[in-house]
Amino acid sequence: MSNALPITRRENFAEWYQAVVKLADLAETSPVRGCMVIKPWGWGIWERIQQQLDARFKATEHQNCYFPLFIPMSFIAKEAEHVEGFAKEMAVVTHHRLKAIDGKLQPDPEAALEEPLIVRPTSETIIGDAFQRWIQSYRDLPLLVNQWANVVRWEMRPRLFLRTTEFLWQEGHTAHADRDDAMRETRQMLEVYRTFAEQVLAMPVIAGEKSENERFPGADNTYSIEAMMQDGKALQAGTSHYLGTHFAEAQNIRYQTATGEMALCHTTSWGVSTRLIGGVIMTHGDDDGLRLPPAIAPQQVVILPVLRDRPDDADAMSFSEDLARALNQQTALGAPVRALVDKKPGRAVDKRWDWVRRGAPVICEIGSRDAAANAVTFLRRDQMYDGTPGGKAKMQNRDAESFVGSIEDMLQDIQKSLFAEAAERLRTNVRTDLGSWQDIATYFGRDDDSQFKGWVLTGWAKPSGAALAKVSAQLKELALTIRNAPLEQPKAVGKCVFTGAPATEAILIGRAY
Amino acid sequence: MSNALPITRRENFAEWYQAVVKLADLAETSPVRGCMVIKPWGWGIWERIQQQLDARFKATEHQNCYFPLFIPMSFIAKEAEHVEGFAKEMAVVTHHRLKAIDGKLQPDPEAALEEPLIVRPTSETIIGDAFQRWIQSYRDLPLLVNQWANVVRWEMRPRLFLRTTEFLWQEGHTAHADRDDAMRETRQMLEVYRTFAEQVLAMPVIAGEKSENERFPGADNTYSIEAMMQDGKALQAGTSHYLGTHFAEAQNIRYQTATGEMALCHTTSWGVSTRLIGGVIMTHGDDDGLRLPPAIAPQQVVILPVLRDRPDDADAMSFSEDLARALNQQTALGAPVRALVDKKPGRAVDKRWDWVRRGAPVICEIGSRDAAANAVTFLRRDQMYDGTPGGKAKMQNRDAESFVGSIEDMLQDIQKSLFAEAAERLRTNVRTDLGSWQDIATYFGRDDDSQFKGWVLTGWAKPSGAALAKVSAQLKELALTIRNAPLEQPKAVGKCVFTGAPATEAILIGRAY
Repeated sequence: MSNALPITRRENFAEWYQAVVKLADLAETSPVRGCMVIKPWGWGIWERIQQQLDARFKATEHQNCYFPLFIPMSFIAKEAEHVEGFAKEMAVVTHHRLKAIDGKLQPDPEAALEEPLIVRPTSETIIGDAFQRWIQSYRDLPLLVNQWANVVRWEMRPRLFLRTTEFLWQEGHTAHADRDDAMRETRQMLEVYRTFAEQVLAMPVIAGEKSENERFPGADNTYSIEAMMQDGKALQAGTSHYLGTHFAEAQNIRYQTATGEMALCHTTSWGVSTRLIGGVIMTHGDDDGLRLPPAIAPQQVVILPVLRDRPDDADAMSFSEDLARALNQQTALGAPVRALVDKKPGRAVDKRWDWVRRGAPVICEIGSRDAAANAVTFLRRDQMYDGTPGGKAKMQNRDAESFVGSIEDMLQDIQKSLFAEAAERLRTNVRTDLGSWQDIATYFGRDDDSQFKGWVLTGWAKPSGAALAKVSAQLKELALTIRNAPLEQPKAVGKCVFTGAPATEAILIGRAY
Repeated sequence: MSNALPITRRENFAEWYQAVVKLADLAETSPVRGCMVIKPWGWGIWERIQQQLDARFKATEHQNCYFPLFIPMSFIAKEAEHVEGFAKEMAVVTHHRLKAIDGKLQPDPEAALEEPLIVRPTSETIIGDAFQRWIQSYRDLPLLVNQWANVVRWEMRPRLFLRTTEFLWQEGHTAHADRDDAMRETRQMLEVYRTFAEQVLAMPVIAGEKSENERFPGADNTYSIEAMMQDGKALQAGTSHYLGTHFAEAQNIRYQTATGEMALCHTTSWGVSTRLIGGVIMTHGDDDGLRLPPAIAPQQVVILPVLRDRPDDADAMSFSEDLARALNQQTALGAPVRALVDKKPGRAVDKRWDWVRRGAPVICEIGSRDAAANAVTFLRRDQMYDGTPGGKAKMQNRDAESFVGSIEDMLQDIQKSLFAEAAERLRTNVRTDLGSWQDIATYFGRDDDSQFKGWVLTGWAKPSGAALAKVSAQLKELALTIRNAPLEQPKAVGKCVFTGAPATEAILIGRAY
């Protein structure tokens, strides 16, 4: 039999991605260019991401707040570096009223704003303004806040979840008395992201520091977690910035020390977004659609009663409902099990494939015969096939009590197996044996574009300024970028692959989303 | 002693409200006119409101989605009635880029949008567009979605929580096969709001139908819940609309019936917002600040170690931490108890009054003597004073085990007592004895403006069109509006107070926020 998607990863990864987003019912484009509609199944994943990240933020003593959607243009102007960096493509609000003039609805010229407002692309400036008011003394530090919000950055070439004009994210913003404390926070949140990605999204990542040219505008240090997608490209899945006193200076965020002097705060910011869902798709999806780690699956077990318009249909239905109730009383991965009976009309086999495409971790099919035998027929989404992919779906059978009793282990096992598969891909596709630029150019430049190209870990002398720009241009010719300098460095770093000078650190090079 | 706020409700209710918002650390104004910053304590209340409402939406089979922040201007234009009604004061995005021209940052003239975008004031139009795509057959109905989102309606006279340019809300949108099913949904969600307000916010409300002139633009029927604030004014705390086929027609939301014909969907929408927090303040606050129903208090028990720079401080601290741990293992009002040890520097008595102002339901003070005696000294925020208000704070004492063992009952009792107090206020301040317009005018028009004025329940003949406009103008002269026609009607409704004709229903009249 053929796969449940009309296209495979190998045929065209970009089109495969779009097919998963669509056929897994995650999201769709909207009439507003670059903005997406997140559908219930996609939103359910985001809810689980939010809940579990939020718990980790609270466990590290952060408090949630909410700051305005709009930022006065003058705030943006103040941050010259900010503007140079990324803040140009922004939604600009210029009027506060619509009016029908000559029968045509239009912005009312009499309601032009004195100062345009920007829809937040990120909130450093507006939050810094509050910090400046909230912080008086060292006793107010550290100040640790986070917000869950929508932000807007105009995108000319949007892709659902990966790059949309409006996206949803969390942005943490903190202020500290000194560099050490701020740097500890920056690194702590990077570690929160790393463990969250690995434990909850089952997505292995490499945590490291961005090179100077890839830093957040205004940051002294930017750290990222990078995940390897199934086409070998890197996805920057989260960033954490140590902003030094740069924003504090621009916004006058000062505090009185214990000895009575005034000092500048050291600030940080860190964020992840709905882009994580894109990462989950490209990490775990297969040619049948999405495969969801149970920790973020809106439903972990979907039960399909197989109805045949016969009197014993009622048995299959009531057995299904009893099964869901029993499962929902279990706990797995630290939360109550989420099981659903899908009662929508339609043939069970069609519904099975819908749920396969959506990536439900476990799919049960309950006919009257199962009900009579007190047994559960089920499919594990991570063990779809007997032997080779493309074979027959591997339906398993177990008596009901033992199925319910084993659900915790099974969900945990699926979570682990998805991580293990992705970790193996990452482990075996970071090349450390390409010792010269020529080797690297050959690896990435080879003719067969469809062939999987991973990352290269190589040494460099960490150039700065013009020398770095030259390196960057050299990489750009092969559509490459420096992903980060991993926190876990190899023992020896050899020579700089760009200059031949002794290297000072190892960096990851690859193509990226 | 004096109260913990610089002003009392009786002195100036509007200024008292502002003092509570500020001194309870709930929110503040921002540099963006009309937009607020919601601070951690205020946000914590909103999180609890969201969680508990969301659970009720899910229990009634609604699914969350997310739709774009922006709405094309043409969508707004299509809804002529929509525009006439309220949608004029809106934030209009006209450009997608900022550019420094002659050294001055400004909207880039080359990046003017072909069609302006509106920041959503509500999402009927953009969600209707999705419904039109999602709904094909009767099998797709009912379609029941909700979103949690920020919306923007330009406010010339903003008031924190009550009326802000940007506010946060949920908006439910549903489509149904026929009027009966849509009306059942409309009334069901009104009932969800009513029970949520009463059970969770401890805020008694009167549910009823809005008069024709107060309907949501485009609705066939609008229902509301109305709460009585401590100044006697009404707060419309939630609305639920039956939209008939009006939006379905404008947006072509049709389905194929079981017999193969095409038919228009009947749609509904319903929402509540951060305004609820304003309602909680004005329902439960007293002259010492906020009083929070335990069900929405971010912390239900705040423990203040009383430290005196002495060796036995450590005992008070560790006893406090043990107490918090023991409390957090308890359950109350259907969720784990939320207890916090406030370790911030400062004198315990100052911190006590901070938490009184913030409305923490139970405040414990633990000195080394309490620790030695295994006892808890505490204050119930709803039983602040021995005897008369303004007296001494009523500190109670109980041995630790019995305090922990009784916390569930105590929190439940506080929840109940706040509701009972507000319910008594509502019950005794709806006048049913004012039989003529003259009586009503005298009641609301009497000289002493500071005197509490409640609501009037009176009969009317439910006029329409011009006759209704006349009634509305007559009411407006006394700054009155019709709040709703309560679902629970009195047995007899007498004569229409405006015309003397036989009345057909009873309506509530009052001043409103």
